Amino acid sequence: MDRVKELVMSVEDKVIEYRRSFHKYPEPGWTEFRTASVVVDTLQNLGYEVRYGKDAVTKEDMMGVPSDEELAVFMERAVSQGANPEIVKNMEGGLTGVIAELKCGEGPTFAFRFDMDSNDIDEAKDDKHRPYREGFSSVNEKAMHACGHDGHTAMGLGLAEVLSNMKDDIKGTIRLIFQPGEEGVRGARAMVSAGAVDGVDYIIGAHIGFQSKKVGDIICGTEGFLATTKLDIKFKGIPAHAAAAPEEGRNALLAAATTAINLHAITRHGKGTSRINVGILNAGQGRNVIPPNAILKIETRGLTSEIDDFMHESARRVVEGAAKMYDVDYDIKIVGGTKSGYSSPEMIQIIKEVAQEMDYFKNITENSDFGAAEDYSHFMSIVQQNGGIGTYLQIGANMTAGHHDFYFDFDESVLASGVELMTRTALKVLG
Amino acid sequence: MDRVKELVMSVEDKVIEYRRSFHKYPEPGWTEFRTASVVVDTLQNLGYEVRYGKDAVTKEDMMGVPSDEELAVFMERAVSQGANPEIVKNMEGGLTGVIAELKCGEGPTFAFRFDMDSNDIDEAKDDKHRPYREGFSSVNEKAMHACGHDGHTAMGLGLAEVLSNMKDDIKGTIRLIFQPGEEGVRGARAMVSAGAVDGVDYIIGAHIGFQSKKVGDIICGTEGFLATTKLDIKFKGIPAHAAAAPEEGRNALLAAATTAINLHAITRHGKGTSRINVGILNAGQGRNVIPPNAILKIETRGLTSEIDDFMHESARRVVEGAAKMYDVDYDIKIVGGTKSGYSSPEMIQIIKEVAQEMDYFKNITENSDFGAAEDYSHFMSIVQQNGGIGTYLQIGANMTAGHHDFYFDFDESVLASGVELMTRTALKVLG
Amino acid sequence: MDRVKELVMSVEDKVIEYRRSFHKYPEPGWTEFRTASVVVDTLQNLGYEVRYGKDAVTKEDMMGVPSDEELAVFMERAVSQGANPEIVKNMEGGLTGVIAELKCGEGPTFAFRFDMDSNDIDEAKDDKHRPYREGFSSVNEKAMHACGHDGHTAMGLGLAEVLSNMKDDIKGTIRLIFQPGEEGVRGARAMVSAGAVDGVDYIIGAHIGFQSKKVGDIICGTEGFLATTKLDIKFKGIPAHAAAAPEEGRNALLAAATTAINLHAITRHGKGTSRINVGILNAGQGRNVIPPNAILKIETRGLTSEIDDFMHESARRVVEGAAKMYDVDYDIKIVGGTKSGYSSPEMIQIIKEVAQEMDYFKNITENSDFGAAEDYSHFMSIVQQNGGIGTYLQIGANMTAGHHDFYFDFDESVLASGVELMTRTALKVLG
Amino acid sequence: MDRVKELVMSVEDKVIEYRRSFHKYPEPGWTEFRTASVVVDTLQNLGYEVRYGKDAVTKEDMMGVPSDEELAVFMERAVSQGANPEIVKNMEGGLTGVIAELKCGEGPTFAFRFDMDSNDIDEAKDDKHRPYREGFSSVNEKAMHACGHDGHTAMGLGLAEVLSNMKDDIKGTIRLIFQPGEEGVRGARAMVSAGAVDGVDYIIGAHIGFQSKKVGDIICGTEGFLATTKLDIKFKGIPAHAAAAPEEGRNALLAAATTAINLHAITRHGKGTSRINVGILNAGQGRNVIPPNAILKIETRGLTSEIDDFMHESARRVVEGAAKMYDVDYDIKIVGGTKSGYSSPEMIQIIKEVAQEMDYFKNITENSDFGAAEDYSHFMSIVQQNGGIGTYLQIGANMTAGHHDFYFDFDESVLASGVELMTRTALKVLG
Repeated sequence: MDRVKELVMSVEDKVIEYRRSFHKYPEPGWTEFRTASVVVDTLQNLGYEVRYGKDAVTKEDMMGVPSDEELAVFMERAVSQGANPEIVKNMEGGLTGVIAELKCGEGPTFAFRFDMDSNDIDEAKDDKHRPYREGFSSVNEKAMHACGHDGHTAMGLGLAEVLSNMKDDIKGTIRLIFQPGEEGVRGARAMVSAGAVDGVDYIIGAHIGFQSKKVGDIICGTEGFLATTKLDIKFKGIPAHAAAAPEEGRNALLAAATTAINLHAITRHGKGTSRINVGILNAGQGRNVIPPNAILKIETRGLTSEIDDFMHESARRVVEGAAKMYDVDYDIKIVGGTKSGYSSPEMIQIIKEVAQEMDYFKNITENSDFGAAEDYSHFMSIVQQNGGIGTYLQIGANMTAGHHDFYFDFDESVLASGVELMTRTALKVLG
Repeated sequence: MDRVKELVMSVEDKVIEYRRSFHKYPEPGWTEFRTASVVVDTLQNLGYEVRYGKDAVTKEDMMGVPSDEELAVFMERAVSQGANPEIVKNMEGGLTGVIAELKCGEGPTFAFRFDMDSNDIDEAKDDKHRPYREGFSSVNEKAMHACGHDGHTAMGLGLAEVLSNMKDDIKGTIRLIFQPGEEGVRGARAMVSAGAVDGVDYIIGAHIGFQSKKVGDIICGTEGFLATTKLDIKFKGIPAHAAAAPEEGRNALLAAATTAINLHAITRHGKGTSRINVGILNAGQGRNVIPPNAILKIETRGLTSEIDDFMHESARRVVEGAAKMYDVDYDIKIVGGTKSGYSSPEMIQIIKEVAQEMDYFKNITENSDFGAAEDYSHFMSIVQQNGGIGTYLQIGANMTAGHHDFYFDFDESVLASGVELMTRTALKVLG
Repeated sequence: MDRVKELVMSVEDKVIEYRRSFHKYPEPGWTEFRTASVVVDTLQNLGYEVRYGKDAVTKEDMMGVPSDEELAVFMERAVSQGANPEIVKNMEGGLTGVIAELKCGEGPTFAFRFDMDSNDIDEAKDDKHRPYREGFSSVNEKAMHACGHDGHTAMGLGLAEVLSNMKDDIKGTIRLIFQPGEEGVRGARAMVSAGAVDGVDYIIGAHIGFQSKKVGDIICGTEGFLATTKLDIKFKGIPAHAAAAPEEGRNALLAAATTAINLHAITRHGKGTSRINVGILNAGQGRNVIPPNAILKIETRGLTSEIDDFMHESARRVVEGAAKMYDVDYDIKIVGGTKSGYSSPEMIQIIKEVAQEMDYFKNITENSDFGAAEDYSHFMSIVQQNGGIGTYLQIGANMTAGHHDFYFDFDESVLASGVELMTRTALKVLG
Repeated sequence: MDRVKELVMSVEDKVIEYRRSFHKYPEPGWTEFRTASVVVDTLQNLGYEVRYGKDAVTKEDMMGVPSDEELAVFMERAVSQGANPEIVKNMEGGLTGVIAELKCGEGPTFAFRFDMDSNDIDEAKDDKHRPYREGFSSVNEKAMHACGHDGHTAMGLGLAEVLSNMKDDIKGTIRLIFQPGEEGVRGARAMVSAGAVDGVDYIIGAHIGFQSKKVGDIICGTEGFLATTKLDIKFKGIPAHAAAAPEEGRNALLAAATTAINLHAITRHGKGTSRINVGILNAGQGRNVIPPNAILKIETRGLTSEIDDFMHESARRVVEGAAKMYDVDYDIKIVGGTKSGYSSPEMIQIIKEVAQEMDYFKNITENSDFGAAEDYSHFMSIVQQNGGIGTYLQIGANMTAGHHDFYFDFDESVLASGVELMTRTALKVLG
């Protein structure tokens, strides 16, 4: 057994413990106060240089953030569930991202991205569900780690510890990025603009599950991350009595309805996949009142960021046109969004070689088509744009239910194997 | 002072007491269990033949009825607020209409219509609001008599007592109709089909306020009652992931949006005023889900029932067409509606003469254009269709705020004057 | 027999001759070169002060004018059919309106309006059709006097002659207005802005037929002229291959389609009748090309000019909004329009009295509801706005077919009776 | 020089002559009477078994066929331009497809497809355009061979002659398919259902130009033929006066407009490229008439026939729904359509080997993505479905202008090389 394996085995129990603790106290996007406070504390103790709060997240680029009132409640809860109050205070406003660096002399910078946020669902309370049975299921209402981010964050802490013990074997800089708000692709932009991937030469993101089903499966690269933009659109008109003086109203409902249809009528794109969806439309106050209010929650997607931009800009024109038609005011708010992306072939090869050296992986696939959005692609595409390379791994984990299902759970042996894979990759590149 | 005046004065205090009691315990449409129980009890004691429950309301023609669960709660509350439990039991299902007859020998039948339901708003809790100050403001949440129906019902009971004392002066039949669900024009249809106006030769409905502003004002007739139909429309589609497999969804939101626009595009009518309004549209489940659900709350109106029928039938075609377009299921439910109408000129003259004989009325107007819907026009138009005549009075009442305002109150002297006017009219016609 | 009757009888044959000559050479809106040339010549010979061409029509206010190329063809034809070439030259650009004055000393100004243009249909060539049988049916393709304007213009010339012979009996000014482009309500605006009704105290317009069916019927006044605006809307986009690069196109057809629907969805108006119609929509170039072009021909109407303005302004917003939505250019051109109106009650009484004095009229009606547009109401409403009074007569004429039917003809005895009525009215007012 | 080369060289001049003659007398889809008559005559003389008229085309499967009156004119013209009258008579109704077989003993069947129809444009009349300069430009109005089908048909006749001289070297059957109506993808379906590809084991189609630009370039296979369906949609309503009685109309224009928008709003497809285009919309009769008529010319496309079917069926539902909405009748006519397809890898290899053996081709590409529709894919996909293989070649030809440009011309040396390539391929497979 080599040194890496030894070190990994030495942290495995702790990693599982972290995961279960995060699982028990899940925190949705921009409210990861307890989670991030644990991350900051742990990494500082391990000797990392840690930036967080306003040094890790640019306020004006945060998307889909809860109101200040809601955030205050979450901050309080975090402290009551064990968070360091001082650290939490520095994260006021939802600035829950963390960037940590281990500088190990001259050499390239290798970044690892971990996501920390939970989903907005209630966890199964059922003895056939292990987290419930074993007492680490969610104690927070309407919140559950049903996508595996608890595991990802735990892996990040395990990796941090192993690498801090191998500092001498590394020539270059290790950078660990813990991001809030991956769900809804809301967090990467604000961390990128705070410099999270400045100077990064290599980047890895990993997700358990997805197309990689069983323990022992690994997919070394991913393509077809769709770029996406999430928009909340509001129309504001004027109410009026629908029988007596309808002409005195300004009809926000009709502005919203014609927006919905014409958004879907935006042309297909000749250069690749495009998507648009009006997921929610709510309008009106009463049956006999000209409706003065409407809200639409929509998203655009594109095979490339260029195509998503085309959809997004076309959508804005439709909204503006509908507002003009019905003489109502409008407001468009970007509440989420990320860039398209694909793994770098060289990076895929590196991962493939590392995976082949490990016993754990039996079924190694080079690449898969994602066909959806992941906030990670925002980090990766910026790294690539600046001349770096990166990939996104999918690691099989014997999931007990699909992602975002309230029975979601996974085989925790995957956590140590992930730490090992990342450690070996860092050493291969910076060793 | 004549006998009528004497009798009216003798009941005035009781009428005001009734009004305040109804005001304190307001009950919205189809839940007038306590109110109707008081009406039934009182009229039976006065010697009227009383039909109520299923003898006064045809279940299948009731529109916009709360669910059985909700009704059960309201029944219980009514009993706790003093209703006769046996009578309430007979009204199970919301059958809260009451029809009472005083047969006074051979002669025509003269009907009076009173509405009993309250509005769905919270009453002002403020010392400048007399009902609150004097302790008879609403004790029921989300319910308030803000349109004067409490006064109407009280007048009905006063009229009943006065007439029962003048039985010998009358040749014919007095019929008193107490209707539920006037708000939303939901109740008349089910009472008409239970025979409420069968054999009626004369009919009067009265409303305090409206265009008749001050105490002493009276408008003897009304034209331009718009016919109206209230519809709830549901679309049911199939959800699907908006990025991965949108073609597997059936989009109820787009069906609703195209319905909304094309409803408003229904042609104007060459024969008179038409209206349509989509007051509320709610659709969708999540931003990235093809929306499988939608509901629209709409209403049509027409200067004549024929025009309203045209709008209603056109609306149905639009809904059916939109469902076909988007391959979704639909359901259309009539939740309200009434016929158009205008007062009979002969009846207006009778009222005018009676009003002129009374001291109370200083400012007598023959007719006014209503421009809105009142469930009463359903009763009246059927009476007229069968050869009878009728009118709708508006009696000035120094209202303290507009109808449906939570500061609504009125000068209670109007109640006795209304009783007197109706008594004199009955005597003039049947005397 | 009085002097008026004698004079009228002396011109009757000439008036019928005029009518048949105009009938044979019908000229559609803005191309009445021959007709107007005859009018100018005749009135000048009768001693009237005649303004025409640019002195009677303001070029920039002309609506729905044919192209210069088309006008040139019509001018040439007019000359070949007997028009005075010099006069025609002065009407270049379609300036075919004529204003003539007979000044008879101090006194008010009394204006009479006559319309000269024909319809765009082919006349019946059939022996049962008198104009064909008797050789005075249209010799111009796609043109026919099927609305009676030939008769109106002939009456105008007859009236001119009779009045010129009664100059000494008149105190004031007679003004005769011969307008082009009544069909499509395109001509009045440009004559009003050239001063056609400046200083007018009384105005009369008359039409044979309409609701006044038979010889001997007369309707002395008219209300319910709808205000109207006629618009041509063009969208200009960019073509692209619909399969290879649809995103490079700008879709004018979809802009037009969404315009059409949303125009019809403009709200009803609480203050009275409104109308909108997209009568024609043509768009596109080929099945597989993103359509870069679209045209809509629409009209708005309103019971009042205020309501028509509301519709017109709302329509412009819809067009602008649709253009914004689809990123296309647009152009809106007013090609017709007139104001709403109603006859002045005093003027109706004057006409009624005059009609009663004449043997000819057996069935005299005071007023009727028009429910459509007539360019005359533009003249009349301006006169009324400036303090004058006016009316619009409908004179029964035993029409052989409906207006705008290719079998349209009428009883020519109506012409002399019209001349007589107008003469007597002028004398009654200015005598 | 081998025998194939010798034979090809011996027919080269004749092939060029054929091409120029077809170029001079271009005939659009289903009117290829002269062209097909030359083909029939020539092949019969070469000893082929020839089926044509109703034996080669199934009438009820023809799409987008001109009217009988139009066809009669084209038949007459064909005869006047040298067609065999007897053959033309057998093609009455536009049955201009030809299938010819050369049976050379036991063995597989190898089919070659050639398209004969021209485009609907006027050819450049300009000395810089060689066909005009050299006197073989189109003499038929609104018709020009601007896509190279003249060359394809000429190649087919050259191939026929060369193969008929090599009968003894072949074991199997040669089948030549000359199809009408490739433009608009209207012809293949009717020939397939007449048995054109029954029993075919190998099939080749070739096109000059496209992505293969220069003489010496060849692309041996093609994928990404989009399936497509071309539809003409008509709505029939009822006209009415738009001001007086709009409710009596049935508005076909609004049905068409809502169809257009909702067609474009049909969802994207998760399994690949989809397209829809409303290329043309014409509706209405007059500005003030409720429009009773509308026509839309549309097309759907899909990466697979399954996706095109999804679009086509969704489109039908939209049309049906719009007709229901506006209470109008509708008619949907399929006027074109073809299946998706991709070349068989084995067949690509065969072509590649043959091309490498020839001096002519310098730049050999295996495959290209077509991204558009070709009627050939209908033939090929049926052959593949029945177990055969096939490919579609693109042969560089130094085009002087893009396909469908009125300056289109090409280097005629490509014709002999095409004949040679096809001959050698036939020999390689059946030799």
